[in-house]
Amino acid sequence: MRIDIITVQPGLLESPFSHSILKRAQTKGLLEIHTHNLRDYSTQKQKQVDDYQFGGGAGMVMMLEPVVRAIETLQEKITYDEVIYLTPDGETLNQGIANQLSLKGNLLMLCGHYKGIDERIRQHFVTKEISIGDYVLSGGELAAAVLVDAIGRLIPGVLNDEQSALLDSFQDNLLAPPVYTRPEEFRGWKVPEVLMSGDHKKIDNWRHEMALERTRERRPDLLDKH
Amino acid sequence: MRIDIITVQPGLLESPFSHSILKRAQTKGLLEIHTHNLRDYSTQKQKQVDDYQFGGGAGMVMMLEPVVRAIETLQEKITYDEVIYLTPDGETLNQGIANQLSLKGNLLMLCGHYKGIDERIRQHFVTKEISIGDYVLSGGELAAAVLVDAIGRLIPGVLNDEQSALLDSFQDNLLAPPVYTRPEEFRGWKVPEVLMSGDHKKIDNWRHEMALERTRERRPDLLDKH
Repeated sequence: MRIDIITVQPGLLESPFSHSILKRAQTKGLLEIHTHNLRDYSTQKQKQVDDYQFGGGAGMVMMLEPVVRAIETLQEKITYDEVIYLTPDGETLNQGIANQLSLKGNLLMLCGHYKGIDERIRQHFVTKEISIGDYVLSGGELAAAVLVDAIGRLIPGVLNDEQSALLDSFQDNLLAPPVYTRPEEFRGWKVPEVLMSGDHKKIDNWRHEMALERTRERRPDLLDKH
Repeated sequence: MRIDIITVQPGLLESPFSHSILKRAQTKGLLEIHTHNLRDYSTQKQKQVDDYQFGGGAGMVMMLEPVVRAIETLQEKITYDEVIYLTPDGETLNQGIANQLSLKGNLLMLCGHYKGIDERIRQHFVTKEISIGDYVLSGGELAAAVLVDAIGRLIPGVLNDEQSALLDSFQDNLLAPPVYTRPEEFRGWKVPEVLMSGDHKKIDNWRHEMALERTRERRPDLLDKH
């Protein structure tokens, strides 16, 4: 998979893409990530990429021309399955969307900044708008990092043990059951006995019960999807 | 505000905290962010912080002892308003929670990794569990970065123009209206005339209408909270 990201803050994305699972995905040749500085596509002397909004009001707007130039320059070389704009009013990301996107070949992501991008870019160039949640961030960069991470770890071969991803929260609309490791007792707090029983059927049943109970308590809305 | 973060990947958080709004918040002395490498709190030679899970199954679990040592060492010096564990089965972050947390003095954040942390840490040390959305990430680091960003930009004085945050999506349970900047016409795509009218009352009405319409179309669930 190849992911291109257009941003005014390429430096912000450096460390998330060079550590942990995303580093491994790239080292293994399973994922290519390219960040592109929007300012490189400005034709103005000051490399300006934002401007006051029509109609007045606080907050700058990302200009249409540099963004269009960046998108079209990249599209000359690469055919993208989706041009994704990260924005709080997009479709809310969930594990199903991450699963679907992990099957694509090339994705182009566009990080908003300031007050957002000129609406005409959304109407004419963007094919998918994604929000990572109902809150506002300084820019789309962290949202893009989250989306790349959620997708990247699902690419076959990226995780060492694929079973691990399939048993995560949300994959079956259940939250994950509690987990424990050594020591068996700490300050009088013990690991549930069933986990020490060696009886795998009993352990599986207990985990399923706990997953159900946790979901019922914390996220009954997920059970409706069952 | 002071935020301490316990993580096995402190390097991953470097660039998000040294750019853009979060950099400005720290430069202005309005926010202090300290990351702590969990491995520094391991007493083992190999600095191991994870172990197999009781009951078997794929995925490692973060060990209880180093995490407890890290939390208690920090708590000797600082009184935290909340000890937050970032986890997909926590309470889903929204703008209201971000608003509340932006009023706190000291926050301690704990990033999960691998299959999660030993359940006993959650029962005995964590005061708040937060999820940034219904998807799974490689670890809690990007979730912590998102939470710090969502909170940090709300601290008074961090944004240059405070009005800007108040008019963002979600602050009034409405999505933001579309924004436009120069040029007025591009490839035949024009800016809506009302925005060029100079009539501020008309412009305000149009923006409110557009915000309502966009919310009705994309996120009718938000209108129920109105």
